Amino acid sequence: MSGVPSVRADRLADALATAGPEDSPLDGLLVTNLVNVEYLTGFTGTNGACLVTPERRVFLTDFRYAERAAEIEGWEIEIVSGQWLEGLAGRLEGRIGFEDDQVTVRTANQLRDAAGRVELVEAGGAVEDLRRVKDADEVARIAAAAEMTDRLYGLVAEHGLAGRTEAEVDAWLTGWMRDQGAEPSFPPIVASGPNGASPHAQPGPREIGKGELVTIDMGVKLDGYCSDCTRTFATGQEGGLDSLAREIYEVTLRANEAGLAAIKAGENGTEIDEVARAVIRDAGYGKNFGHGLGHGVGIEIHEAPRLGPSSKDELMVDEVVTVEPGIYVSGATGVRIEDMVLVGETGVARNFCSFSKELKFL
Amino acid sequence: MSGVPSVRADRLADALATAGPEDSPLDGLLVTNLVNVEYLTGFTGTNGACLVTPERRVFLTDFRYAERAAEIEGWEIEIVSGQWLEGLAGRLEGRIGFEDDQVTVRTANQLRDAAGRVELVEAGGAVEDLRRVKDADEVARIAAAAEMTDRLYGLVAEHGLAGRTEAEVDAWLTGWMRDQGAEPSFPPIVASGPNGASPHAQPGPREIGKGELVTIDMGVKLDGYCSDCTRTFATGQEGGLDSLAREIYEVTLRANEAGLAAIKAGENGTEIDEVARAVIRDAGYGKNFGHGLGHGVGIEIHEAPRLGPSSKDELMVDEVVTVEPGIYVSGATGVRIEDMVLVGETGVARNFCSFSKELKFL
Repeated sequence: MSGVPSVRADRLADALATAGPEDSPLDGLLVTNLVNVEYLTGFTGTNGACLVTPERRVFLTDFRYAERAAEIEGWEIEIVSGQWLEGLAGRLEGRIGFEDDQVTVRTANQLRDAAGRVELVEAGGAVEDLRRVKDADEVARIAAAAEMTDRLYGLVAEHGLAGRTEAEVDAWLTGWMRDQGAEPSFPPIVASGPNGASPHAQPGPREIGKGELVTIDMGVKLDGYCSDCTRTFATGQEGGLDSLAREIYEVTLRANEAGLAAIKAGENGTEIDEVARAVIRDAGYGKNFGHGLGHGVGIEIHEAPRLGPSSKDELMVDEVVTVEPGIYVSGATGVRIEDMVLVGETGVARNFCSFSKELKFL
Repeated sequence: MSGVPSVRADRLADALATAGPEDSPLDGLLVTNLVNVEYLTGFTGTNGACLVTPERRVFLTDFRYAERAAEIEGWEIEIVSGQWLEGLAGRLEGRIGFEDDQVTVRTANQLRDAAGRVELVEAGGAVEDLRRVKDADEVARIAAAAEMTDRLYGLVAEHGLAGRTEAEVDAWLTGWMRDQGAEPSFPPIVASGPNGASPHAQPGPREIGKGELVTIDMGVKLDGYCSDCTRTFATGQEGGLDSLAREIYEVTLRANEAGLAAIKAGENGTEIDEVARAVIRDAGYGKNFGHGLGHGVGIEIHEAPRLGPSSKDELMVDEVVTVEPGIYVSGATGVRIEDMVLVGETGVARNFCSFSKELKFL
């Protein structure tokens, strides 16, 4: 609960000058998204909020968390008794931003009713913006999570895939992560043969055969931070894989490499996506790549920025993003290849996914 | 993905006549809360929505879930390509309710912008209302989840607690659940000695000593449905437990029994809470019971109805609710005793938690 640098809240306070709609100034920001609360304070309970003003850092929670809240350093702790929203509302003054991308319509209406003359304005995204750029400690945690995922891919290659069911492989991956003291950052995807055509397939009872592709998409959450990496493997003998599978693997790998080469601070998410997408489109598979190229990774497995056809995000130094093109052929097979990288001034500063992308036959 | 009775969507369609604000009629309801979508269709992916009108049952998802969506029976399947909210908005007509208790302010604004002349009105809670009353299949699943939790309490009593750390006990409980093919319905609470004073304590490195109380609050999710049960144990010899611990155990147990005796269809959540709360208040511990008496359990571990000082819910036959009074003495110790029961016409129709509530010394 300790050890969160106070500079995070200080930066948020600095951002208040332009955090309101159309860059208008705010007297304070009410942070209710619990992931953002965790980022600012380290608190990981199920009910808490932060009120940040130029002068104050107030952490609010309820009776249940009084003991844990006392461990938070650098914040005034207030325990709200009675109704939570009224407790929050009673502590607001002036023009206060709230996280409109997290607060529901009903809660906002109740908060407005309770807050009387306080002006509540839509100001979501301020903490998410701060979270985009990782500090050295965050990068180290993400790297440790990625290293664990790399090791697990090594074990996959060692143990093989053919003859086990997707669900068995999934349970084994998840069990191994937990034995290492980590949690899956999302339920692993193990999609074999025709199931590979579904980007978010759920591992099922299908036994992995020979001569097919198997896409594994997985990551761990370790020490509060996530990793994310996808590799597609082949099974059986090299000669047993059909030409469609070979071709889409080769095209996806080229798209992945083109995407990585386009990563650089200052580039925008649409253009980077387009560089990778063009490789797939030029090969005739444009319609078989229906999702965006990548996303930020941090406390959450999906966070800002986004790389995709409609992204408005411009990359910054020390962001962590994925590059994960895929080709999905319904009823037949699919490929996805994903790396997670640190954005640098002139290109990829670090590729956290070091496991080989050469097509392996297991 | 199959096997969800179509009567659920039919009941929702019937409810449209009064589902709008102040019981006004709706032309349709847009369901975006994924738990509600799962209840109606069985779909368990990360993006999907239902549009229910008197005549139509439309399930919408995106490209990634096209293959899984095809397995859903009794619904028109529409795959939204391009922008999700615009895709939803384009399919709406007339006066459409949305789930204002789930949709964020930002999403509602974007949906309104995209929906043009469609009238979007606040209508959250309609599916939650249906979910309150469980059908026979749901009761059977909840009973199976509870039976598993009971067995695990039996193992706790067999293995003892003193000498192990809270975190070790937690890992053992969670591991056992997973070995049985279940998941924890929430991270188990194992709160020993002074940690018991925190209702939502996180299991930590504290070694459980002798002569203290240990509160274990746990449940499993099995086949899509949750269980929830809390027992407080004592450690060491009977003579080693101090009189405060003995007293609050005895008072909490009486409060639990009083609460159970008050459960009955037609009673309201405030009154039932008050029956149990009065026992604790009369014993002088009113300030040490800072949470509500109970909550509904189903697909979610916390769902409607609520039993608490500000509840407006009136119990109905075949609801499943918890009764979980507690007494928390900061710096010293704590007790909580929780049963999960089926509401009947004249009282508790079934107590799913059969593990003994007599204070056990392990």
